[in-house]
Amino acid sequence: MKKILFLNGPNLNLLGTREVDVYGRETLSEIAKKVVRKAEDLGVEVDFVQSNHEGELIDKLHQGRGVYDVLVINPGAYTHYSVAIRDAIKAVGMPAIEVHLSNIYAREEFRAKSVIAPVCVGQISGFGSKGYILALEAAADL
Amino acid sequence: MKKILFLNGPNLNLLGTREVDVYGRETLSEIAKKVVRKAEDLGVEVDFVQSNHEGELIDKLHQGRGVYDVLVINPGAYTHYSVAIRDAIKAVGMPAIEVHLSNIYAREEFRAKSVIAPVCVGQISGFGSKGYILALEAAADL
Amino acid sequence: MKKILFLNGPNLNLLGTREVDVYGRETLSEIAKKVVRKAEDLGVEVDFVQSNHEGELIDKLHQGRGVYDVLVINPGAYTHYSVAIRDAIKAVGMPAIEVHLSNIYAREEFRAKSVIAPVCVGQISGFGSKGYILALEAAADL
Amino acid sequence: MKKILFLNGPNLNLLGTREVDVYGRETLSEIAKKVVRKAEDLGVEVDFVQSNHEGELIDKLHQGRGVYDVLVINPGAYTHYSVAIRDAIKAVGMPAIEVHLSNIYAREEFRAKSVIAPVCVGQISGFGSKGYILALEAAADL
Amino acid sequence: MKKILFLNGPNLNLLGTREVDVYGRETLSEIAKKVVRKAEDLGVEVDFVQSNHEGELIDKLHQGRGVYDVLVINPGAYTHYSVAIRDAIKAVGMPAIEVHLSNIYAREEFRAKSVIAPVCVGQISGFGSKGYILALEAAADL
Amino acid sequence: MKKILFLNGPNLNLLGTREVDVYGRETLSEIAKKVVRKAEDLGVEVDFVQSNHEGELIDKLHQGRGVYDVLVINPGAYTHYSVAIRDAIKAVGMPAIEVHLSNIYAREEFRAKSVIAPVCVGQISGFGSKGYILALEAAADL
Amino acid sequence: MKKILFLNGPNLNLLGTREVDVYGRETLSEIAKKVVRKAEDLGVEVDFVQSNHEGELIDKLHQGRGVYDVLVINPGAYTHYSVAIRDAIKAVGMPAIEVHLSNIYAREEFRAKSVIAPVCVGQISGFGSKGYILALEAAADL
Amino acid sequence: MKKILFLNGPNLNLLGTREVDVYGRETLSEIAKKVVRKAEDLGVEVDFVQSNHEGELIDKLHQGRGVYDVLVINPGAYTHYSVAIRDAIKAVGMPAIEVHLSNIYAREEFRAKSVIAPVCVGQISGFGSKGYILALEAAADL
Amino acid sequence: MKKILFLNGPNLNLLGTREVDVYGRETLSEIAKKVVRKAEDLGVEVDFVQSNHEGELIDKLHQGRGVYDVLVINPGAYTHYSVAIRDAIKAVGMPAIEVHLSNIYAREEFRAKSVIAPVCVGQISGFGSKGYILALEAAADL
Amino acid sequence: MKKILFLNGPNLNLLGTREVDVYGRETLSEIAKKVVRKAEDLGVEVDFVQSNHEGELIDKLHQGRGVYDVLVINPGAYTHYSVAIRDAIKAVGMPAIEVHLSNIYAREEFRAKSVIAPVCVGQISGFGSKGYILALEAAADL
Amino acid sequence: MKKILFLNGPNLNLLGTREVDVYGRETLSEIAKKVVRKAEDLGVEVDFVQSNHEGELIDKLHQGRGVYDVLVINPGAYTHYSVAIRDAIKAVGMPAIEVHLSNIYAREEFRAKSVIAPVCVGQISGFGSKGYILALEAAADL
Amino acid sequence: MKKILFLNGPNLNLLGTREVDVYGRETLSEIAKKVVRKAEDLGVEVDFVQSNHEGELIDKLHQGRGVYDVLVINPGAYTHYSVAIRDAIKAVGMPAIEVHLSNIYAREEFRAKSVIAPVCVGQISGFGSKGYILALEAAADL
Repeated sequence: MKKILFLNGPNLNLLGTREVDVYGRETLSEIAKKVVRKAEDLGVEVDFVQSNHEGELIDKLHQGRGVYDVLVINPGAYTHYSVAIRDAIKAVGMPAIEVHLSNIYAREEFRAKSVIAPVCVGQISGFGSKGYILALEAAADL
Repeated sequence: MKKILFLNGPNLNLLGTREVDVYGRETLSEIAKKVVRKAEDLGVEVDFVQSNHEGELIDKLHQGRGVYDVLVINPGAYTHYSVAIRDAIKAVGMPAIEVHLSNIYAREEFRAKSVIAPVCVGQISGFGSKGYILALEAAADL
Repeated sequence: MKKILFLNGPNLNLLGTREVDVYGRETLSEIAKKVVRKAEDLGVEVDFVQSNHEGELIDKLHQGRGVYDVLVINPGAYTHYSVAIRDAIKAVGMPAIEVHLSNIYAREEFRAKSVIAPVCVGQISGFGSKGYILALEAAADL
Repeated sequence: MKKILFLNGPNLNLLGTREVDVYGRETLSEIAKKVVRKAEDLGVEVDFVQSNHEGELIDKLHQGRGVYDVLVINPGAYTHYSVAIRDAIKAVGMPAIEVHLSNIYAREEFRAKSVIAPVCVGQISGFGSKGYILALEAAADL
Repeated sequence: MKKILFLNGPNLNLLGTREVDVYGRETLSEIAKKVVRKAEDLGVEVDFVQSNHEGELIDKLHQGRGVYDVLVINPGAYTHYSVAIRDAIKAVGMPAIEVHLSNIYAREEFRAKSVIAPVCVGQISGFGSKGYILALEAAADL
Repeated sequence: MKKILFLNGPNLNLLGTREVDVYGRETLSEIAKKVVRKAEDLGVEVDFVQSNHEGELIDKLHQGRGVYDVLVINPGAYTHYSVAIRDAIKAVGMPAIEVHLSNIYAREEFRAKSVIAPVCVGQISGFGSKGYILALEAAADL
Repeated sequence: MKKILFLNGPNLNLLGTREVDVYGRETLSEIAKKVVRKAEDLGVEVDFVQSNHEGELIDKLHQGRGVYDVLVINPGAYTHYSVAIRDAIKAVGMPAIEVHLSNIYAREEFRAKSVIAPVCVGQISGFGSKGYILALEAAADL
Repeated sequence: MKKILFLNGPNLNLLGTREVDVYGRETLSEIAKKVVRKAEDLGVEVDFVQSNHEGELIDKLHQGRGVYDVLVINPGAYTHYSVAIRDAIKAVGMPAIEVHLSNIYAREEFRAKSVIAPVCVGQISGFGSKGYILALEAAADL
Repeated sequence: MKKILFLNGPNLNLLGTREVDVYGRETLSEIAKKVVRKAEDLGVEVDFVQSNHEGELIDKLHQGRGVYDVLVINPGAYTHYSVAIRDAIKAVGMPAIEVHLSNIYAREEFRAKSVIAPVCVGQISGFGSKGYILALEAAADL
Repeated sequence: MKKILFLNGPNLNLLGTREVDVYGRETLSEIAKKVVRKAEDLGVEVDFVQSNHEGELIDKLHQGRGVYDVLVINPGAYTHYSVAIRDAIKAVGMPAIEVHLSNIYAREEFRAKSVIAPVCVGQISGFGSKGYILALEAAADL
Repeated sequence: MKKILFLNGPNLNLLGTREVDVYGRETLSEIAKKVVRKAEDLGVEVDFVQSNHEGELIDKLHQGRGVYDVLVINPGAYTHYSVAIRDAIKAVGMPAIEVHLSNIYAREEFRAKSVIAPVCVGQISGFGSKGYILALEAAADL
Repeated sequence: MKKILFLNGPNLNLLGTREVDVYGRETLSEIAKKVVRKAEDLGVEVDFVQSNHEGELIDKLHQGRGVYDVLVINPGAYTHYSVAIRDAIKAVGMPAIEVHLSNIYAREEFRAKSVIAPVCVGQISGFGSKGYILALEAAADL
């Protein structure tokens, strides 16, 4: 059975309580539940991880090599500068899908630049938690 | 019943026969058929339009005001400079979803800049024709 | 009798119904009527044209050569990138006046750059439909 | 009766004798006379001030608060760097109209940037002394 | 027999009457005649098309697929921003030659950038109508 | 009683022994003592934390939500690129004060850019350990 | 007894009545009173000067040489371009503290650049009139 | 007899006592004396003026029209941004020579840009007070 | 009889053996032979020179003054920075044609900038050795 | 006996299995063994550490102060943005040598910028694992 | 007796016959004669050298070490890019004076940047051959 | 036996006597001797060449084709702009190693850019003459 790793970056643990006008009122675990339910429908398995630590996100990626078939990553603020996570994605060789809750192209200018995007298959941004479901479908479809 | 306009920009009429390594072998009408089928499942109605003319794309947007509930747009090369289409999207006031077949962030640098994105709800790029299906779901979900 | 061509670019046909906080509630034909009335006062003749098509705007400019004495142009979004319209203005050799309803210098940064301005006699921006009347006076005065 | 302050920046006192190919042969007091005459027609009152001193222009703006209803300003070279005048305009809260004799967009590149424009209602440039009359009309109309 | 499409962009229809110091006094149809004559000498067939519409230029390119062996294109002002035409050239897969009447590197700075050049075989600029003849020879030689 | 979190970023643990000409001879714990003493005077409570780990600084911020009333942060080198810490500050919603021992505007050019500053109430830089006392006063005063 | 010069730049005379959401409702003389009171506590003497004239601010600085021990300067809009004031500060050789009422890093991008900061000991911004008190303390402490 | 105006900008009145390692120990009046003596040798007349006020420097330039044959200007810090002084020089039409005591190309990067230089005959920088003598000779020679 | 100088810059002596995928397999002397043969047809005389030395290329240009009627130059890598060669071309006053074997606009970004082009009549690039023949024809035609 | 710390940044633990065309097939522990063997020859002692965590790399550096004589660091992706590691190197005061397996100047443009290099003695890049041996020799030689 | 080397860069040998509107009608040897005559007056010795070769100019500089006391250099076009000449000037350690016939700040933008200036004592530009005399005086005065 | 060419660029002939704080006191021939001795140990042959002439360095490279197996190049100041040398290295096809005595990343900003590096195997900078020995070892190892 296809296994998919959902990796969530910094501050996403505060989801649902933080800047609700930008990120919505759902918590990350509520999103995780939705994703799991959808995964069952699609016949795939998902794991859901969050960390505020760049190094830990890299460690998780490394540990996932050979375990997961696809990566879905919401790198949070690391999107804009973590070449280390970018290199980790390339290093582990899993096809990756980048997902953002908000439309990063309609916010501060520095958010329009993703250093992660060039090593991903594709990107989904702006659809809130629905974006996770779409990413899951895309992942299942790869 | 929710109505969704799929608007396709320049050169997308050549899909399936053009740079197949970048854009895949499916033609636009094959994609349209898939989209229509999925729309039936979702209980929404879709129209599928393509034009190479910036002005015509704008005209279509204007004509769609009050007719369609959501716009899904693949602006093709106009993505990178058509402020006129951007203004049209804002002017007609429909929620819009930007979709790209290829990952525009993994190609020439000038393709990483979308003047359309800041006026859209969200963006999906890199998943080939699957991206149209995801966009449809997102549109149905708005 | 002096003849003046008023050329209006993309999305201006939606005037009065589109982003009314930026562009006001008057429609383009209401503005046209005001302009015509004022033209009668000033003893000049005006024609009023709108198109969303860059190519058509250029065609109109070409057709206007030898017919009109002055051009008043609101290039809409083409202001910011249409070197083709700029070249057309220079090619037809009519003195041109650029007009904008909104103050393009108080909006998004990319709107502060007009590729049209360097080939015009002057520019009027920010006065809503009153700007058309001022442009007409300036045109009559040239 | 509506009162309008015409504020003129550095080197405008030399008008009519300075670079006549760029700025024309009319002197500032000749322009002032024309403006006064037109003001009488429009039933408004105008004052006409010139200074080469940035600080004095700011002082005049401050003194004009509560005295004038509208500001018409030709900031001369200060257009391009005087954030202090910009802040003064914002501070006094009068609606402001920026006017330039020459088309600042058809000259040296550094003249295309106005730090004053974003805090004004609108801008008129390139029509020589006629621009002052147009600005007056716009001011009367605000 | 080899078939070559000569595609001419915006404002080139005014050739011979427009800015004659920059573009010379020959009209486009006079140039076309010269090209046809030379084509006969070289034993190739040429078609000569002009449009001010970006979309139409793209349509012509699409229609030319399978019909013409080589494209000679003078994109006029579209040279500097039409990624859509660039993509069309790449999409139809014909070898392309870019030609300019004037030396685009000796004019305004923005004219020194061609978005079309990277998808062409080569570029000829600055030789007036002679450049069309040289382009024809190059095309015949490919 | 008002509670204030003093959060110190990378390399600040070496204070007093590191580049003493730039950062002075006081150690971080000596500064902490001074701050505590002053806090007693002001009738506020302070906690003093240091970490070299970006992720840990974020964790501390998250844990401080609902515990502290104000944040005083010296982000050290993270000042210049940690969008993740910036987002954490915004996410936890505490008013924040940025403090730097050295004058970051009188050093290498890259140090003049703080990605943290735009989400803070204010910034104090260049006063050595005195800056911590000033920040405390400002925090007590908010 | 230590003497400290408080130098205030353009438009600060309007404080309390100007853009109160940005700068607060206190007038400059109210702030001056607070500063004087605090100075008495600290056993230092202060003078409080304001001018809208760049040249006068420089003159005041020159006259203050040998008279004052420390400079506290709020250069207002001159912060962003007055190299002349910067040079004056360096020329008179007094240690200088830059103070801003608003957080200049959370406003328009051009306000984030201070040409004054590199010649100051330190900078305090964003704390309203409290910033003047903090600057005084820092000055007394130098 | 040829008359030459020596105009000195901000902070030059402090010469000889200010940053002596950069600007030397001679005072401006000592330099003036040297210049006067040399002027006598060359059979020309000189006036020597200094002001810290941009506006006053402009006023002096205006008053000098028709009085002086050549301008020698050390614009001090205004070198780098005073478009108003630049315009004044152009407006009065006197040939101008720019002089700097220090080598402005061997200091901070922003000092390498003179907005004054393009409207001068020539520039002399880096020779201390000797530069004034050289400028005088050049002026006498024009 | 018209005399044309073909001047070839650095590394062109290795032609035919160097990066054959970019520059082709023909040697420079083979190209020279073709050019000479074509020159005979056209009734013009050509000289063919190559040097790796910037200074020597300049010397050759100087020596060619009054000897040659037209210059055809392939400046090789000097294209991108030799202002000295640019100035030499302008200094000798011969009409010049710039030629490149490869399409310099389809390679590394720095190759898209020619400092030579602005002082030439025109430019031909991308046609391999055929470009030399086209340049010859253009030269004969000037 | 001289002690040298080899510090390895993110993703280097995957060496030998990751992008082998860029980084080669040797694992980090194989490289470590080679380095240890060479260290014995040179009569120096080495420790070999790897971490994906920026904070941990900083901690290791701090702990190494007073323990090691020289640092050899391969900062991996942190090369391009970790000012925190740069500051740590400066803070601990050990002479440092930067080493990269691949030639960072022949890859993506962003890899050509090292924020670490300015605080190192020197840099070795592009020689694969041999670079570690060279760095060791350089370290032994310092 | 003080010895001064006058070093002249590329294309200066054509002086007097080349672009006479920019550079004047005097030849370099005429200027040399004037300089020699003035040198006699001043009691200094001069040598006058010209080369189009960057390498030769460097060689001459090296040979001049220990022979000449001051360098006067007109680097011609090498001004704008020859870091090698810059390094040579620094390497030989002679005080250097940069001289330009034309005002390099009133021409093409790229001419406003001198890579030579930062290693010189001072710069004189815009006074034609008179600039050489001024440079000589400055050199004699050093 | 493997043959290695050591090519040294401009001003390196002055080594040991020039800016000794940056480049050290060893002369180039002393370094050459060290290199030769080490080469004997390694069983390789080396030639050591220096020139100040860009063209000569290129000629040497061309002559070295088929003679040497590896190139070690210290391009001196040509590092930063000589595309001609870069192209020569690529043209001759020898593997190349770039070496710098000083750490080019810790000096003026323009020295941080090498146009040579992208066509080399690797780069060694900052180790003084030891860098030549390291480069030799790397060369022997290739």
